[in-house]
Amino acid sequence: MEYSKFNDEDLAFLIGICEQERVTAREAIGDDYCHDELGGTYARPDVHVKVRSTAEIASIMRYASERCLPVTVRGSGTGLVGGAVPLQGGILLDTSLMTEFLELDETNMTLTLEPGVLLMDIAKYVEPHGLFYPPDPGEKTATIGGNVSTNAGGMRAVKYGVTRDYVRALEVVLPNGEIVNFGGKVAKNSSGYSLKDLIVGSEGTLGVVTKITLRLIPLPKFKISLLVPFPDLAAAIRTVPEVIRSSSLPTAVEFMEREVILAAEKFQGRQFPDTSADAYLLLTFDGASQQEIDLAYDLAAKTCLKCGAKDVLISDTDERNESIWSARGAFLEAIKASTTDMDECDVVVPRAHVADFVLYSKELEKKHSVRIRSFGHAGDGNLHIYILKDELDDAAWEKKLKEVFEDLYAKSREFGGQVSGEHGIGYAKKPYLAEALSDDVRQLMSGIKKTFDPKNILNPGKVVEA
Amino acid sequence: MEYSKFNDEDLAFLIGICEQERVTAREAIGDDYCHDELGGTYARPDVHVKVRSTAEIASIMRYASERCLPVTVRGSGTGLVGGAVPLQGGILLDTSLMTEFLELDETNMTLTLEPGVLLMDIAKYVEPHGLFYPPDPGEKTATIGGNVSTNAGGMRAVKYGVTRDYVRALEVVLPNGEIVNFGGKVAKNSSGYSLKDLIVGSEGTLGVVTKITLRLIPLPKFKISLLVPFPDLAAAIRTVPEVIRSSSLPTAVEFMEREVILAAEKFQGRQFPDTSADAYLLLTFDGASQQEIDLAYDLAAKTCLKCGAKDVLISDTDERNESIWSARGAFLEAIKASTTDMDECDVVVPRAHVADFVLYSKELEKKHSVRIRSFGHAGDGNLHIYILKDELDDAAWEKKLKEVFEDLYAKSREFGGQVSGEHGIGYAKKPYLAEALSDDVRQLMSGIKKTFDPKNILNPGKVVEA
Repeated sequence: MEYSKFNDEDLAFLIGICEQERVTAREAIGDDYCHDELGGTYARPDVHVKVRSTAEIASIMRYASERCLPVTVRGSGTGLVGGAVPLQGGILLDTSLMTEFLELDETNMTLTLEPGVLLMDIAKYVEPHGLFYPPDPGEKTATIGGNVSTNAGGMRAVKYGVTRDYVRALEVVLPNGEIVNFGGKVAKNSSGYSLKDLIVGSEGTLGVVTKITLRLIPLPKFKISLLVPFPDLAAAIRTVPEVIRSSSLPTAVEFMEREVILAAEKFQGRQFPDTSADAYLLLTFDGASQQEIDLAYDLAAKTCLKCGAKDVLISDTDERNESIWSARGAFLEAIKASTTDMDECDVVVPRAHVADFVLYSKELEKKHSVRIRSFGHAGDGNLHIYILKDELDDAAWEKKLKEVFEDLYAKSREFGGQVSGEHGIGYAKKPYLAEALSDDVRQLMSGIKKTFDPKNILNPGKVVEA
Repeated sequence: MEYSKFNDEDLAFLIGICEQERVTAREAIGDDYCHDELGGTYARPDVHVKVRSTAEIASIMRYASERCLPVTVRGSGTGLVGGAVPLQGGILLDTSLMTEFLELDETNMTLTLEPGVLLMDIAKYVEPHGLFYPPDPGEKTATIGGNVSTNAGGMRAVKYGVTRDYVRALEVVLPNGEIVNFGGKVAKNSSGYSLKDLIVGSEGTLGVVTKITLRLIPLPKFKISLLVPFPDLAAAIRTVPEVIRSSSLPTAVEFMEREVILAAEKFQGRQFPDTSADAYLLLTFDGASQQEIDLAYDLAAKTCLKCGAKDVLISDTDERNESIWSARGAFLEAIKASTTDMDECDVVVPRAHVADFVLYSKELEKKHSVRIRSFGHAGDGNLHIYILKDELDDAAWEKKLKEVFEDLYAKSREFGGQVSGEHGIGYAKKPYLAEALSDDVRQLMSGIKKTFDPKNILNPGKVVEA
């Protein structure tokens, strides 16, 4: 597909729709809008437009479709795979001003909101009403639109599932500018193909999400965390399936190693409650009553001790919880601060293979002489494995990264894993997705892309080939 | 699309693949294979083939694709919308012999099985291992393949969700005969478009499901039911959102009226524990400990009493549970036995509108002078509304049915509802789905159908136009 070259007439059209102050063109566009959080993918849009409404988006898409101009949607730009980077230039459609909470329906327990609302603001908005939006991705300044587009997961997936499980309905602007609605405020639905589920996780390649209706649940009033030291990482991670199998369903199960904790201590300049052990599990439990969580954590604590835990540290004060979870929240930044550059692998493997996979990543450290750090969601099999550039020069780094990634993704396939657990494919992971899919599946995905976006104007070059 | 006429060469090919005794042709095909459970849709296949394996299905699809023969997949034939009726003749691909349990993976808590396994056999298989498959559609002799194809819901959806929420991976034979795999034994997945979610609920129009990996959870060891009499139906149903909002998350919430209970008593020849009230809620709770469910049902009971319940009858013995739930299980058959013919409407509305919708169906009884009975899943908004033929002649019945359906679906749309909560669209509900969708959405669904099935050979004429 040959795209049109963005011209002054296009710029005038966009200013007509969105007013001068929300439209920035060409060299005036800040560098921040040319990459996302991890930074490996870089491209400059022709124009950056801060949209305010579905109607504006519909007008812009209709125009872009007629003119054959590429359009890339961007929320907060906190992605890690280049999904919001405008590879082909064109229009960068920025939804960060669309931050309205449209309706909190307490009877149906749904929240309808605009895509630019930040994840952290959802919690602030619903929790005073005794309601809860369970998905809990680490990056709280991400937009909900971005979370829907990547089917973001987060720590609480063990008990509560992922973003997909909470999206009841979507308003979407199609590439041709038409406004459509998928799903509804209903708890069950068998009314034709689930286009809502196709949009969730499609990374802005099929339509522009302009309104989202989320399912909420009653806010669990009680919670507790357990920090459980283990003699080594394998013992820690191998305990996880036992805990989940034991009916004491934890909200989250994270694993962490001493070296990552020490990096976080250094980065934050504050102490972690315990650093005596090589490896830890961090478990949380929530529930409607103190009795309910007492029963659950007691059972989990016994299971951990039976599986070789050295101790079980109960964290039931806000202060202690904060010290543990703020360290957990700082892992990514702490690792980032410890090196010159890094890239990450967000594979997900079946829970039974988590320990083997993490141990394999340690073998790769030796094999490729590169620092590799990991932490992640032991409870749901989603690992975050960081490969650190340190003193490597750019050429050596590119080469090394490719080798390590190839080993990691190959091992993940061997274990029945998937390329991405929660960060998505975007541009950076496209070759690895292509490798993981059969020709037929790739063709189906391309066919779906063509059905939604026959001119390939929406986020071109991402996820799959059109 | 012009289909080929089924001929003796085709028959010989199928016998070559599946052996003589699993292939029945033309007039020898029993009448049972020409309709489903509700019966309104009738068509005769040219050949009925009982397949045994993915390889057989792949060979047959490859052949059918080359020859351009229509293929319709059938499990137990317990559908209610004509989904498994071979409208265009051709091959009826019967998966009822594919009943192998392939793997119970206790560490990852998954069950992999063939599509012909009956729902009731899944419970028998996993529960002795302390594991639980939560979806609980009323029809226990349905196949799991059929449940996946319709995204079956059932009573426990309030707490546990629907079939979609438990499908981790699918092996699918595409219309061209290629075998593909979607998903995996992983708890999170953001690796391209969710084709698994597209297959779930696609009613056998996009591919043939040949292997299913289900997520299991720990078996809740304790359960209790509450039968709660109310002065009238509106009071009963209006209590439901309050209960769900109160953190005492019930497993299921059903509503039932005295007249339906009396019909079930008559049909079963056994007494229901209480028939003194006009309307009842039936709530169940399950959990990992007695304390957990005690807390939950105590809170729910108080909420019910506050909302006007006349009493709360606790059912915690197997005998009493059985008497209540067997009556609930007999409602459909009891209503069926009370009339000459009937048809049903499986709409789902937001929970807040359930009471208004049921009251509206009572207005329609008067408006159209026809008996209408309903019961259903008050907790998730999925109603089953039965229109009874009684003494009407065929022409009057067809006319009346059309009028009542049009009113029901129009009201459902007004309330933000959907055409089908769990039975699917099949053939019978296609006009109502078409009415509910915008042109753009219909075109997207058709485009997806064409992407998977360019020759329109798989279950043609169902769900959407190709």
